[in-house]
Amino acid sequence: MQTIQSDSYPIFFENSIQELVNFVERGNYSRLFILTDENTGEFCLPAIQTALAHLDKTDIIEVNAGEESKNLDFCMGIWKMLIDFGADRKALMINVGGGVITDMGGFVASTYKRGIDFVQVPTTLLAQVDASVGGKTGVDLDGVKNIIGTFTQPKAVFMDVEFLKTLPPRQILSGLAEMLKHGLIVDRAYWDDLKNSDLSLPSVELVHRSVEIKNEVVIEDPHEKGIRKALNLGHTIGHAIETYSLLNDDNPLTHGEAIAAGMVCEAYLSAQKIGLPNEELREISSVFDKLYPRYTLNEAMFPALLEIMQNDKKNENGNINCTLLTRIGQYSIDNVCTPDEICDSLRYYAAL
Amino acid sequence: MQTIQSDSYPIFFENSIQELVNFVERGNYSRLFILTDENTGEFCLPAIQTALAHLDKTDIIEVNAGEESKNLDFCMGIWKMLIDFGADRKALMINVGGGVITDMGGFVASTYKRGIDFVQVPTTLLAQVDASVGGKTGVDLDGVKNIIGTFTQPKAVFMDVEFLKTLPPRQILSGLAEMLKHGLIVDRAYWDDLKNSDLSLPSVELVHRSVEIKNEVVIEDPHEKGIRKALNLGHTIGHAIETYSLLNDDNPLTHGEAIAAGMVCEAYLSAQKIGLPNEELREISSVFDKLYPRYTLNEAMFPALLEIMQNDKKNENGNINCTLLTRIGQYSIDNVCTPDEICDSLRYYAAL
Ligand SMILES: NC(=O)c1ccc[n+]([C@@H]2O[C@H](COP(=O)([O-])OP(=O)(O)OC[C@H]3O[C@@H](n4cnc5c(N)ncnc54)[C@H](O)[C@@H]3O)[C@@H](O)[C@H]2O)c1
Ligand SMILES: NC(=O)c1ccc[n+]([C@@H]2O[C@H](COP(=O)([O-])OP(=O)(O)OC[C@H]3O[C@@H](n4cnc5c(N)ncnc54)[C@H](O)[C@@H]3O)[C@@H](O)[C@H]2O)c1
Ligand SMILES: [Zn+2]
Ligand SMILES: [Zn+2]
Repeated sequence: MQTIQSDSYPIFFENSIQELVNFVERGNYSRLFILTDENTGEFCLPAIQTALAHLDKTDIIEVNAGEESKNLDFCMGIWKMLIDFGADRKALMINVGGGVITDMGGFVASTYKRGIDFVQVPTTLLAQVDASVGGKTGVDLDGVKNIIGTFTQPKAVFMDVEFLKTLPPRQILSGLAEMLKHGLIVDRAYWDDLKNSDLSLPSVELVHRSVEIKNEVVIEDPHEKGIRKALNLGHTIGHAIETYSLLNDDNPLTHGEAIAAGMVCEAYLSAQKIGLPNEELREISSVFDKLYPRYTLNEAMFPALLEIMQNDKKNENGNINCTLLTRIGQYSIDNVCTPDEICDSLRYYAAL
Repeated sequence: MQTIQSDSYPIFFENSIQELVNFVERGNYSRLFILTDENTGEFCLPAIQTALAHLDKTDIIEVNAGEESKNLDFCMGIWKMLIDFGADRKALMINVGGGVITDMGGFVASTYKRGIDFVQVPTTLLAQVDASVGGKTGVDLDGVKNIIGTFTQPKAVFMDVEFLKTLPPRQILSGLAEMLKHGLIVDRAYWDDLKNSDLSLPSVELVHRSVEIKNEVVIEDPHEKGIRKALNLGHTIGHAIETYSLLNDDNPLTHGEAIAAGMVCEAYLSAQKIGLPNEELREISSVFDKLYPRYTLNEAMFPALLEIMQNDKKNENGNINCTLLTRIGQYSIDNVCTPDEICDSLRYYAAL
């Protein structure tokens, strides 16, 4: 698997732990700080710690697992540990975990002493194909997701699909939704590959192609002014479903499960509004419906869902804005959808 | 007074409030957030608020005056207000105040939604000639100064020496020390101008020249890797005196008072070590001694002062590193000084 060159930094896919060691040895860092959570501390850290042991300059910072940790209180805890450990400007932060760890670790590093180097070791599928590429760092505040953060690139990303073996199946499905999205927006052949693969543990080739796609999109539009909106497919409606589920369900949907539902709805809108062929709508619906549990939607939920969409930062002046498809592999940004159209698409999904 | 072009942004010196209005009108901002403290809210805000009133889209955020406010708790308060006010990515933050406000407001803006635009309206002399130029933002944590921050440039800086009229004389002297430093490191003629001016309220011409000098230095070295160290003249010893005074005195020295003392000590070291002519040492000592109250130093304080210097981030491996002068107007970076040499320089200052 070829190393991908993003912006100014490499994304490794082969012998990644060895590449990390090489990187660190070349780097002349004063000290290494590994950020993990409880799970990656158990499943992923040991291999990395062993590989770096001979350098004898590593400290571990572990936080609780889950989105609840991704906030400024945890950042303060990490910054204070860096101060206590005497971390100077030549320290390196190594973020080992899912998107929570790579987002928060990136933010902490990008602001400690006005920015120290950091690298990402994404250990969930979602973090590999999405969170660790694109330079967005961030944490939540007052329940608002990713409201505080920076655009800062890591010095390198080390991908290892081996880490995915300990990941619960729902977490695999969560990342998979973004991969399917990558195929839908720009690469019909990749979509077909995915359709025909065993997706219980995606191969390094499939992960590689997803990263390639995301990387191309974000390099063209690093600050999210235009074509990066292609990546919003499924997210206008999916994000509303995700938020709704977080507020109302005991066992809420994952991000991927929600945007899988969102992609079906938005494929429906694509067929209604901008000519996505009906057989492609059927194909998209059936692929998602086979992989993902159906979320139960009913009319009584629609007003709440619409309100979430209208308050979404992706939307302006209360208009609901969707990225849609003209074909599988061809996206179209900035399609304004009316509340009626959105409701129809929710009905379509519910009646699949 | 010519507008100075820094990096990518203008620094205005004339009709600055009108220039701010022009900037905001051109900018198509969704909303304006003015950050002030109690004092600038009283003395500086009214003129600005009046000038922007016709736009009818301004909110004010006021914090307590003083360094005690420059921390993450206050940042959280400001971020939450931005969320509550519904600030989106097209909001503009206008920081009206001294270095505390420009540093903290810059940090808050550079991380809210991964960065919104901000402009600086520095209202202390120190903020005008130092803090508002160079792109450093930051706040304190756990008593460590500026430990969390970013390198982010404002979109514009609006200087108005009129604001300085309400500034207490000690605050004028604090900024003046940096101006004298600018002359000492690179511009003998400017040093002479300063010597011969009424410095109770520096003219816009003098402020302009200081900004020009700081701007040239930071543009050459934006991330503080080399020549920016020229700006450290007086700061190795001065910063130790400042810290010592903060810990021990009821009415501690200002930053400028401390680095004025530091510059005398480091001028002495310059004469001892790298050939600063003795008559220039005498001239420097006498200029500072006329302007600034002498700080009482005695031998019993030396160990504490040395320890602060050895832990200073500017110094590596316990070596004490000074920026010195070969002549007035000619700096020399990275001069390692022994503890004995430092103590001699403190004795020289104490016995002036
Ligand atoms: N920066 C971006 O561009 C971007 C893009 C997408 C998502 N995100 C962010 O990513 C986060 C979601 O990422 P996530 O789904 O990876 O969440 P996560 O980091 O919470 O990981 C999910 C769970 O898997 C566990 N885990 C991680 N690696 C494991 C492994 N190898 N084996 C077993 N368990 C493991 C974690 O401990 C956690 O419990 C969100 O906060 C989201 O905002 C960011
Ligand atoms: N970013 C940088 O490059 C840089 C450089 C130097 C200093 N700094 C920072 O700047 C800060 C010190 O700046 P400062 O001395 O301006 O401190 P400050 O902001 O606390 O201002 C000093 C005092 O003057 C008051 N004040 C401000 N403007 C006034 C006016 N026009 N009239 C009357 N009172 C007024 C303030 O309320 C405060 O009480 C420190 O935190 C330091 O770290 C930053
Ligand atoms: Zn997503
Ligand atoms: Zn200074």
